[in-house]
Amino acid sequence: MAPKSWLPLADNSPFSLANIPFGIVTSPRTGVPTPAIAIGEYVLELGKFASNDGFSRASSLAPHLSVFQQTTLNAFAALGRPVHRQVRQYLQDIFAENTPYPEILRDQKTLQEQCLTPLNEVTMHLPLTIGDYSDFYGGMNHAVNAGALFRGQAGALLPNYLHMPIAYHGRASSIVVSGTPVRRPWGQILDNSVTDRKATLFVPCRAMDYELEIGAFICRSNNIGDNISIKDAEDGLFGFVLMNDWSARDIQRWEYVPLRTFNGKNFATQISGWVVLADAMAPFRSKGLRNTQELLPYLRDREDSVYDLNLAVDIISRDQSTTVSQTNAKDGLVWSFPQMLAHQTITGCPMKTGDLLGSGTISGEKEGSLGCLLEMTMNGQKELVLGNGEKRAWLQDGDSVRLRGWAGTPESGLVGFGDCLGQLIAAHEYEALDLP
Amino acid sequence: MAPKSWLPLADNSPFSLANIPFGIVTSPRTGVPTPAIAIGEYVLELGKFASNDGFSRASSLAPHLSVFQQTTLNAFAALGRPVHRQVRQYLQDIFAENTPYPEILRDQKTLQEQCLTPLNEVTMHLPLTIGDYSDFYGGMNHAVNAGALFRGQAGALLPNYLHMPIAYHGRASSIVVSGTPVRRPWGQILDNSVTDRKATLFVPCRAMDYELEIGAFICRSNNIGDNISIKDAEDGLFGFVLMNDWSARDIQRWEYVPLRTFNGKNFATQISGWVVLADAMAPFRSKGLRNTQELLPYLRDREDSVYDLNLAVDIISRDQSTTVSQTNAKDGLVWSFPQMLAHQTITGCPMKTGDLLGSGTISGEKEGSLGCLLEMTMNGQKELVLGNGEKRAWLQDGDSVRLRGWAGTPESGLVGFGDCLGQLIAAHEYEALDLP
Repeated sequence: MAPKSWLPLADNSPFSLANIPFGIVTSPRTGVPTPAIAIGEYVLELGKFASNDGFSRASSLAPHLSVFQQTTLNAFAALGRPVHRQVRQYLQDIFAENTPYPEILRDQKTLQEQCLTPLNEVTMHLPLTIGDYSDFYGGMNHAVNAGALFRGQAGALLPNYLHMPIAYHGRASSIVVSGTPVRRPWGQILDNSVTDRKATLFVPCRAMDYELEIGAFICRSNNIGDNISIKDAEDGLFGFVLMNDWSARDIQRWEYVPLRTFNGKNFATQISGWVVLADAMAPFRSKGLRNTQELLPYLRDREDSVYDLNLAVDIISRDQSTTVSQTNAKDGLVWSFPQMLAHQTITGCPMKTGDLLGSGTISGEKEGSLGCLLEMTMNGQKELVLGNGEKRAWLQDGDSVRLRGWAGTPESGLVGFGDCLGQLIAAHEYEALDLP
Repeated sequence: MAPKSWLPLADNSPFSLANIPFGIVTSPRTGVPTPAIAIGEYVLELGKFASNDGFSRASSLAPHLSVFQQTTLNAFAALGRPVHRQVRQYLQDIFAENTPYPEILRDQKTLQEQCLTPLNEVTMHLPLTIGDYSDFYGGMNHAVNAGALFRGQAGALLPNYLHMPIAYHGRASSIVVSGTPVRRPWGQILDNSVTDRKATLFVPCRAMDYELEIGAFICRSNNIGDNISIKDAEDGLFGFVLMNDWSARDIQRWEYVPLRTFNGKNFATQISGWVVLADAMAPFRSKGLRNTQELLPYLRDREDSVYDLNLAVDIISRDQSTTVSQTNAKDGLVWSFPQMLAHQTITGCPMKTGDLLGSGTISGEKEGSLGCLLEMTMNGQKELVLGNGEKRAWLQDGDSVRLRGWAGTPESGLVGFGDCLGQLIAAHEYEALDLP
């Protein structure tokens, strides 16, 4: 049974008492970005809650409360998992139907009016300042499918793939929060209409794609030269977001050798605004895809270090939404975030609180479970039909892509991520580029 | 003739009046990181200089002086090229033999004692906080040499190479300043002693290399979705540093497909501490290598957008230094930093003040002018002989790598970069990795 709250919570709310995700919001009343949690149809603004003695029944938190006066969650994240756990538990107690602390909020209409704001009235921001962002390639079905498209079925999975989590460094400055429009990028592509030479075109991307991923925020640092052992890696995970790794496939295709994707992905990577704490996901631990390779000790993780997390992708065109993919993290990932963190730091690469790891594109094995159009349309060869009859090889201007993710059930209390939503807007006019 | 100063300046000083590079130093006296310039054998601490009315004869700078009370150069850089130019010119005036403002510093022994600190007494720090770091591949000879090693001479230069500056996103958190020791990384490599299967080893890197590059710091921002036109790109360059892109070739080799180098380069990238302003390098503009490809308009730059910048690499073993490479930026680069900046932002990728661009490895055409051991030893096949008779296929623990760079002549006043120096130290013991 889902824990009940004195605050009205719909059974199908993604933000049940079992969740308590953290984000950064601006409410019309507060006017500046402030840490908050989502609960049902509301957010609790933690800055105001803290400064009005909201945490007075959790005296051990007193030294830490300044973190809720920040404009990002970095300081809160840096306090570490035990404190996150304590804050989440305390806020669950505050909102519980039989709260042990009714005098704090339940019976304080004035404080409720000051701190509880309807979710639909707030603007969301990036939850943390992101120093570095690494995008992994942990989705094995995606690796197989993409590999088969470019190298054929026999060479689909490369020899190193099951030995270690493969990754590349991503661009941190272009990470945007859900709701931010994404502008179609200009780029240099190969002119396929000309066969006798390498002719290039300078055009807006003609092969816009999304990628369904999960992101993990890091909540600990290591000094350069030191590593984070697989034993400690899970404690380095603050929480999770949905991530759309927007991709320009034609730009990517031409620039791809020898250093791989650069401009093809540096224009936007989008994440959902609410960080679902690692503790909130702990009940949904699951085995991921089986790795048949015996791993080196530095990568040996517990077996259930992936999550039973339902995922879906909608493409919205002219106000009509079509669910084009449904899958689950456990059906797509062969590598876990602790393995990724242990691998990346085994060289001594320093991580900082707020760094982001991407899982890689998550695709199931079946049709209807694929994580990007590249796979679904076989690199643009086979059009996808939307619910309104429109066809797509790639995204069109005006299309919105919505990622959804949730663990649990309405009965036990949903642990939902909220949307990662972005609308593709038209490229700039050529003149706006101010070329010579 | 080199401009003379009332401060004794050796003719061969890299920090002549023609230079005036900016950095962040901690002096024993000040005890906190502060902006400074290097001049001869001294640094001028700009925080103290500013707060003691040092800039009083440059009244238009008055609104900006708080930038010299910061612990990084980001705020100064963000003021833009016209202000950098004005500050540099003013400081050249202050130190000129016939300074128009003798009362500011030349005749003020007390202020000299407060602000001028011997160079060898200060500790240097990273000059700017680096948001994102992009490493380009603008050195054509390196691209040819590396390509030939892995793909043979015929396929050495890939079809896209002359069409656009190829790059990858680097790791910003592991950028360290000159003088920082670099720890040999652990990593997963392929066991070449076993031929019948893909057996891996977990070992400290056995193929440690350096790469000779130049870095450019960015001093302007663009909003996501907008671009920085090639016409405006040069004004976006704050200045330059030497850069050693430390590389673990065996780790790189095994992880290399399909997403390219990750752990092979994420453990350390080293830069010299003094930023030579773009204005100081302007007199040394030069054509780079000729690009035979007609470029798309967005990449059409003036012809002399590379620099006549002498470069050298020393390997120091047991206190004996061997110069293993001498080259010049203009003999190695086919792409300019303005082209790199215009290319990276043509998608709308947002740049921020403090972002760093790497040039890519700079190799000349001749023997003795190659920018990394990979090229010099033909991927470890041909040992290099140091001055003391020691041989190197790759770097050994205790070896130091020193990059040097300078433009101009002692007669005109050298514009030197100072060293980018790093000593390779032994990998951690296995036990320190705390594995399961």
